[in-house]
Amino acid sequence: MDTDLQIARQARKLPIADIAARLGLTPAEILPYGHDKAKISHAALAGLQGRPMGRLVLVTAINPTPAGEGKTTTTVGLGDALNRIGKRATVCIREASLGPNFGMKGGAAGGGRAQIVPMEEMNLHFTGDFHAVTSAHNLLSAMIDNHIYWGNALGLDTRRITWRRVMDMNDRALRDVVTGLGGVANGHVRQTGFDITVASEVMAILCLATDLADLQARLGRIVIGYTADRRPVTARDLRADGAMTALLRDALQPNLVQTLENNPALVHGGPFGNIAHGCNSIIATNAALRMSDYVVTEAGFGADLGAEKFLDIKCRMAGLQPSVAVLVATIRALKMNGGVAKADLGAEDVAGVRRGCANLGRHIENLLGFGLPVVVALNHFSGDTEAEVEALRAYCAEHGVKAITARHWAEGGAGAEELAQEVVALAEGGGADFHTLYPDSMPLWQKIETICTRIYRASHAEAAPGLRQQLETWEAAGHGRLPVCIAKTQYSFSTDPTLRGAPEGHIVPVREVRLNVGAGFVVAICGEIMTMPGLPRNPAAETIGLDEDGQIVGLF
Amino acid sequence: MDTDLQIARQARKLPIADIAARLGLTPAEILPYGHDKAKISHAALAGLQGRPMGRLVLVTAINPTPAGEGKTTTTVGLGDALNRIGKRATVCIREASLGPNFGMKGGAAGGGRAQIVPMEEMNLHFTGDFHAVTSAHNLLSAMIDNHIYWGNALGLDTRRITWRRVMDMNDRALRDVVTGLGGVANGHVRQTGFDITVASEVMAILCLATDLADLQARLGRIVIGYTADRRPVTARDLRADGAMTALLRDALQPNLVQTLENNPALVHGGPFGNIAHGCNSIIATNAALRMSDYVVTEAGFGADLGAEKFLDIKCRMAGLQPSVAVLVATIRALKMNGGVAKADLGAEDVAGVRRGCANLGRHIENLLGFGLPVVVALNHFSGDTEAEVEALRAYCAEHGVKAITARHWAEGGAGAEELAQEVVALAEGGGADFHTLYPDSMPLWQKIETICTRIYRASHAEAAPGLRQQLETWEAAGHGRLPVCIAKTQYSFSTDPTLRGAPEGHIVPVREVRLNVGAGFVVAICGEIMTMPGLPRNPAAETIGLDEDGQIVGLF
Repeated sequence: MDTDLQIARQARKLPIADIAARLGLTPAEILPYGHDKAKISHAALAGLQGRPMGRLVLVTAINPTPAGEGKTTTTVGLGDALNRIGKRATVCIREASLGPNFGMKGGAAGGGRAQIVPMEEMNLHFTGDFHAVTSAHNLLSAMIDNHIYWGNALGLDTRRITWRRVMDMNDRALRDVVTGLGGVANGHVRQTGFDITVASEVMAILCLATDLADLQARLGRIVIGYTADRRPVTARDLRADGAMTALLRDALQPNLVQTLENNPALVHGGPFGNIAHGCNSIIATNAALRMSDYVVTEAGFGADLGAEKFLDIKCRMAGLQPSVAVLVATIRALKMNGGVAKADLGAEDVAGVRRGCANLGRHIENLLGFGLPVVVALNHFSGDTEAEVEALRAYCAEHGVKAITARHWAEGGAGAEELAQEVVALAEGGGADFHTLYPDSMPLWQKIETICTRIYRASHAEAAPGLRQQLETWEAAGHGRLPVCIAKTQYSFSTDPTLRGAPEGHIVPVREVRLNVGAGFVVAICGEIMTMPGLPRNPAAETIGLDEDGQIVGLF
Repeated sequence: MDTDLQIARQARKLPIADIAARLGLTPAEILPYGHDKAKISHAALAGLQGRPMGRLVLVTAINPTPAGEGKTTTTVGLGDALNRIGKRATVCIREASLGPNFGMKGGAAGGGRAQIVPMEEMNLHFTGDFHAVTSAHNLLSAMIDNHIYWGNALGLDTRRITWRRVMDMNDRALRDVVTGLGGVANGHVRQTGFDITVASEVMAILCLATDLADLQARLGRIVIGYTADRRPVTARDLRADGAMTALLRDALQPNLVQTLENNPALVHGGPFGNIAHGCNSIIATNAALRMSDYVVTEAGFGADLGAEKFLDIKCRMAGLQPSVAVLVATIRALKMNGGVAKADLGAEDVAGVRRGCANLGRHIENLLGFGLPVVVALNHFSGDTEAEVEALRAYCAEHGVKAITARHWAEGGAGAEELAQEVVALAEGGGADFHTLYPDSMPLWQKIETICTRIYRASHAEAAPGLRQQLETWEAAGHGRLPVCIAKTQYSFSTDPTLRGAPEGHIVPVREVRLNVGAGFVVAICGEIMTMPGLPRNPAAETIGLDEDGQIVGLF
């Protein structure tokens, strides 16, 4: 079979205005970016208000392993399949970060015959959204140091500034820097650093804002640091919120592209899945729901992290009611979760599959616990044996859910029609009774404990010294109703990335908490979290370039 | 009269495909960005090769003063006027830098009824070109520190790395920084800094490259630093040139917008006018010349800096043959050049005008010296008196050139028709015999001296210790044929910004020289040059925002 890139290049893309027309949008309601990308205008978005909403399908997965699960591929394939069986379906996924493409080879949006195009542009500047986030973030940074330079009227404690700078680049040398050197004209010396753009609170805000007014309000609430007497100072105190909103005005408009089968896809926003919530924007999901029968979306990492945040943060804030959860697994990944080494994945190992199903079963239970009907999508690989697949089917049947083999990678939407039929049956069967894991009113520490014990199945969470007091201070300041965003390894239910399967009774150490008032959540950090990656010894950048036709090579 | 912003908002813009059609471009040959901006595709550019070229008109000015001259306004008004008198004319100007808009209020592209639209977008992200430059520049920076981190096989002397980072923001705290703090995992500690994006050599390269292959070759030649034994290390040595080219692929395509009178304008690239050459891209000018009878373009600052670099750097490299130089002056600016204080500009002062004409006369002589026919455009202000205008006319007549009053600010193209007629008469009269100031073969120091004595009328140039030896080293390394780019104050022929009029016999101290092999010039720095601005006490960002219609306010 051809590579993802070859398939993507062979795609017969329709003009983006034709894709927009399928959503009921006129050429005046979109802002084209070239011939195969467009933004849906703010005016068009406003015109959608009050329309009935379609059904929301969440695609999530077992804990990731090096074997790969194919969550995005399944999201795209399911979207195409729903269209094939007569539903107007739109896919909603995140945008890719520019920087990491120059380290490892870039990620396609999907794979095989289930992809979103144009692939190269989506991995480079796309429509400039991430550059706008970078600019808005760094404008605030510049205004902080400028405020101090001109007399520091707000009384910022320069040791207690928490707002850093960002760059969409893997650049480890910027993690920890000293700025303001060179004398009086350059300001005050300060130790600070850069994160990668997707880790910016501005990115999380862009993805959680419902309109421009909400965007500005959230930006204004960003806490950038503290005064000597520990009073928080906000972006609004610095009068930065208006200009940041102006910089993000266009970026807040969702991006429309298409699948290989010419179905609409909204690709918008890309917050980190660890220190942020890891889903595409609320504004894109809302728009898609008002223009489609079905919206298929995905959440970052495995269901313990991604689905939990999607449900407890994004759906809570946006008032979304998902109808079905699709839990993606592969025989190979199940075997790895069952302790099989990567080198041995080629051989049939039914016992390994059965052991790995413990991980799957835990996610099924958790998703059912949110009141969602569940279907397991077995993303088919050619090496899967009938006995292995049967072991999975039997396991799922015991848990009251169906496991359906999907062959969208090789066959496109046609390969996922059976999955689509089951999704429709569950969605239209009225079985969904979605509720969040915890109420807004629950105290912050109890929210953390609830996630750790109910989702991760830890015996308890353990707070670093002073941490619970910190949470109480925030509760006293009126932030107690915020949801919690846990940052921990995606490879395990525990905080030990090597502990696959379905561990229980472990302890979750919470090392640090951060208050993201603008995004509207409290981050609880459990383990090492890298917010500025580095480049490898032989970065992909060394082999990226243009061929004689001006096409980009080496990116994939 | 309405403000520039009000006039711009009232503009009846044509769909950008209609503007493209006027240039003979089909909808498939442009890449739209929204409905009023587009890029001209690489394929369309390739198709223009071999077509006959129109006539090139340079708009330049006397030395700038706080009174304002209106060079861009005249460029736009002249373009509109040429179209009115039956010539197919295209305007070519630079893009605006994002960062400075958050300090002082942003600059319109033109003014009054001679503007290019859309104004807000052109002052914000526009089509993302500057973000692409920022990314390409910083990718190289990251690859340098990454190369050192992984063992420094090229033997870079970390004290001799000259390549910094860039950000399109006014952020003085980044001028001088230490990176790589925080221990082994973050690399080696180094002192470095950030410049504003327009000061990047990558920006100069984007504007001087003739196609993608030339772009990559120039990027590869960038010298990023030296080994311990002083051998230069290039971007190509780091294998960064291909990925940088991929990042700049779209940015190299010129941006098409329109004037208020719906005439085509290419707005592309924006290198600094001091440490770089300060003109729009060669690729835009070349494309415009192949699609128009006339191309009206401008160069940064006054004619001593801007026109000299346009002619000796851009025209030399691109093989361009300008037909006419339009020298813009205002009565008010002439008076300031004649020593009149800003507060006294409202009163008639014929003697002041006559004194200021010395500055004008010097520029006329210089331009004639390049073999260009010259016309003086008097950009009309309502307070100008007939006696003052007559003094200017008489002065110009003595120097053998016409001074023509142009009222495009108030009247649009109709107000500049007489100027357009004179431009056509000069251009089609065959009087141009353009030649550069110095040949490629002249030694570098002699090139600097030639500019200082012949253009600035200094008695001589004075080299800082070791500087001439440095130039000789570069000549020995094969860089002796490069042109020279002087960085000095734009306010005077001398290096003293307060010395208006037409000083002569002064000494030009050359403090530093820099080798920009990628851009293809040697920079000679004469005076303080700021490559990263700061924000003022009350930055414009504090009042920028959106109104209830989502329109940007406070930017102008």
